[in-house]
Amino acid sequence: METLRLYDFLLSGNGYKIRLLLTQIGMPFERVEVDITKGESRTPEFLSKNSNGKIPVLEVETGKYLAESNAIMIYLSEGTEFLPYDRFLRAQVLQWLFFEQYSHEPYIATPRYWISVLGKAQEYHEAIEQKREPGYAALRVMEKHLSNCAFFVGERYTIADIGLFAYTHVADEGGFDLTRFPAIQAWIERVKAQPGYIRITEELKP
Amino acid sequence: METLRLYDFLLSGNGYKIRLLLTQIGMPFERVEVDITKGESRTPEFLSKNSNGKIPVLEVETGKYLAESNAIMIYLSEGTEFLPYDRFLRAQVLQWLFFEQYSHEPYIATPRYWISVLGKAQEYHEAIEQKREPGYAALRVMEKHLSNCAFFVGERYTIADIGLFAYTHVADEGGFDLTRFPAIQAWIERVKAQPGYIRITEELKP
Repeated sequence: METLRLYDFLLSGNGYKIRLLLTQIGMPFERVEVDITKGESRTPEFLSKNSNGKIPVLEVETGKYLAESNAIMIYLSEGTEFLPYDRFLRAQVLQWLFFEQYSHEPYIATPRYWISVLGKAQEYHEAIEQKREPGYAALRVMEKHLSNCAFFVGERYTIADIGLFAYTHVADEGGFDLTRFPAIQAWIERVKAQPGYIRITEELKP
Repeated sequence: METLRLYDFLLSGNGYKIRLLLTQIGMPFERVEVDITKGESRTPEFLSKNSNGKIPVLEVETGKYLAESNAIMIYLSEGTEFLPYDRFLRAQVLQWLFFEQYSHEPYIATPRYWISVLGKAQEYHEAIEQKREPGYAALRVMEKHLSNCAFFVGERYTIADIGLFAYTHVADEGGFDLTRFPAIQAWIERVKAQPGYIRITEELKP
């Protein structure tokens, strides 16, 4: 296999993390669209790549697959400017990435999926309301941290920023009001100003 | 500071991951009990250590704190036999640790907390029922993987095993029936047979 192959869904923030990082690293890759709204990540063929049935999945060599967006980012960024070499700074990057998957993504990303990807705000109304308070709690943790720092770790742009940016910058598509969070808004602009930035739904040239 | 200090809650599986790993590495540490059922992880003093208000937190040097159990495990295990050196194997360890925090812990650990830690099975009955199917889905992913492997990654005991063991081996305390999963049960016995194994509620000698 000549280039990395990314099994992806264009609207997915988790998939976007990998697209953005690979573009900024300057590493060529091939994208395979998997429509998760049509069950394409639950077929026997896809499950043979990731038994947990989720995108993104990166094929790093023919038949060698890696799942979990943040694990893929760590794998790809080792030895680059996007992951600190210092042991404690690297651990802080990991801390924020686990925060993202546990305390942020389930509350910020899921309402966006129901409202803006599936277009079923009414059907999921009650579930969306249950996500509001923990979602805002995660945004408050971010706001507090960013009121003292330009980026999440070590005052420079790392995969901790990419990980948290992916769903935060489109949180309004899930009904979250980001105007309450000036430090987050300023950080979003700093991320968008990074070299090689691409938008979440930007179709990449092959 | 002479020894590492772990802010912990004895019944917590996330805290147990760190206790078990440190014991198996043979690294001395001091444990500070934080009773999360009494709001002790939400005090201003604790929030200054982890603004997300969760244990475990490891004080690696005086005033230098690290949160998120799996980030702490990765930090502690670098350069030890518990984290592979090979880049792809290490990425697979990370994959399973993110699987644990996203697809496993929220469904397996939370019912145990409501039922066996708080003793409020009736009050949380509906929420517990909502956790059942995704919890069993995570166990099925583990069962499938373990039907071909002795351990999660590279055929040896790593922090991927510790991470998944912490809440899986007490899943019955949250009402999950592990007798349906023979490969998981055999793996649990293999983990318990590791040198330096301690039980989840084992009080450690200072």
